Amino acid sequence: MRIARFSLDGNVAFGVIEGDELDIIKGHPFADFERSGRRIPLDKIRLLPPVLPNKVVAIGRNYAEHAKELGNEVPDAPVVFFKPSTSVAGPGDPIVYPSFSSEVHYEAELAVVIGRMCKEVPRERVRDVILGYTCANDVTARDVQRAESQWARAKGFDTSCPLGPWVETEADPGDLAVQCTVNGEQRQLGRTSEMVRSVEDLIVHVTEAMTLLPGDVILTGTPAGVGPLNVGDEVAVTIEGIGTLTNKVIKRD
Amino acid sequence: MRIARFSLDGNVAFGVIEGDELDIIKGHPFADFERSGRRIPLDKIRLLPPVLPNKVVAIGRNYAEHAKELGNEVPDAPVVFFKPSTSVAGPGDPIVYPSFSSEVHYEAELAVVIGRMCKEVPRERVRDVILGYTCANDVTARDVQRAESQWARAKGFDTSCPLGPWVETEADPGDLAVQCTVNGEQRQLGRTSEMVRSVEDLIVHVTEAMTLLPGDVILTGTPAGVGPLNVGDEVAVTIEGIGTLTNKVIKRD
Repeated sequence: MRIARFSLDGNVAFGVIEGDELDIIKGHPFADFERSGRRIPLDKIRLLPPVLPNKVVAIGRNYAEHAKELGNEVPDAPVVFFKPSTSVAGPGDPIVYPSFSSEVHYEAELAVVIGRMCKEVPRERVRDVILGYTCANDVTARDVQRAESQWARAKGFDTSCPLGPWVETEADPGDLAVQCTVNGEQRQLGRTSEMVRSVEDLIVHVTEAMTLLPGDVILTGTPAGVGPLNVGDEVAVTIEGIGTLTNKVIKRD
Repeated sequence: MRIARFSLDGNVAFGVIEGDELDIIKGHPFADFERSGRRIPLDKIRLLPPVLPNKVVAIGRNYAEHAKELGNEVPDAPVVFFKPSTSVAGPGDPIVYPSFSSEVHYEAELAVVIGRMCKEVPRERVRDVILGYTCANDVTARDVQRAESQWARAKGFDTSCPLGPWVETEADPGDLAVQCTVNGEQRQLGRTSEMVRSVEDLIVHVTEAMTLLPGDVILTGTPAGVGPLNVGDEVAVTIEGIGTLTNKVIKRD
């Protein structure tokens, strides 16, 4: 099932995608809900970020080939960092090129959407806390990342976390193709089976330290092939069985 | 004026501190409000974190003597990192010693509470976006901080961000004493005038990259004298003209 968040005539709601239509749901995806039977063509609505996370917990260097391409080792423990809620953008939203960088990179990633409040999740319960999966772009000011020891500005600027287009609740995250294209040309193509740490490992590790809330998002790292984005580029993240997240890079006003 | 957030009989509200009483306010501190004249003795209520930040943006190595004591240089640019909303605790709340660390440190800090949504704030407008100031403890798993390149787990675990006891709206942050005691013994004593970057500098720098929301909090760095906390310790952060934030360290269940 694919759950989308959308706006129509100024109202925000959730719906289930069915072909080229959306069936509005009664209730909330984090609780009990049912389909209303009220269907709207997808081309009449604007898709929003599928959730509004309280926090995005992201993982660095989780694909060995990507760690190597930037001259890094695979770390002993997962590299954990935050992207704030103010960095989230939706499908079709612009990525606004930040004023303080001249080297902005795309990073296609599988995103895990948390469905229930949880802490210290045992490995065998990880699937229970996951609502589903979506596509993410961990947009990074690479020059700032190199210059600053902590990545809050390099990876936390406004619009640096496009998410979408919807939450797929039935994907198996173990071996999915993760692709990034820029202006239609393929730049990244990896498989989630190449992750150094699995989705289960990451959620056990993160929740050892902190509570996750419904709607929080875990980004699971990017495969090799990262590279620059320029103003005017259209970047698309496609994950097998989930969908495609497309965003255009614009100049700030 | 000192604005506190509190719970009474299961309801959460804001009030203005007047001596040993609190005058409940009508409205919200981020918008227009007035005092109701309904007063409650402080010993009848439970103070809560004075705001519920969407994000806490923290600054590392902003006092030269503290950078030196940990063997670090004062960085060319401010070190910016996040503490998530799930790390926030209130005055009197426990700091729960995390399972994955055996070296947890206190760090007394001046916290700036943002009053309005803002981005790219010019220096001369910084005061307009500040609601006021409170005390913070940037509790840190020092062993984890040394081991992991990004500080999300070391400084983002649950209860690692006590804030309070209230927001003082009239403090001048330029030269205030910042003190930390553990079990009544002084461990840190610095002055905000020793900051490498001022509150104005920090807000200009942070908002160059990201939008701040009402209730977001900026932690401004800690003076020299950091050291360990143990289960059973009572740690108190006192800032001149603001108040004292006290928390006890407990073992997790």
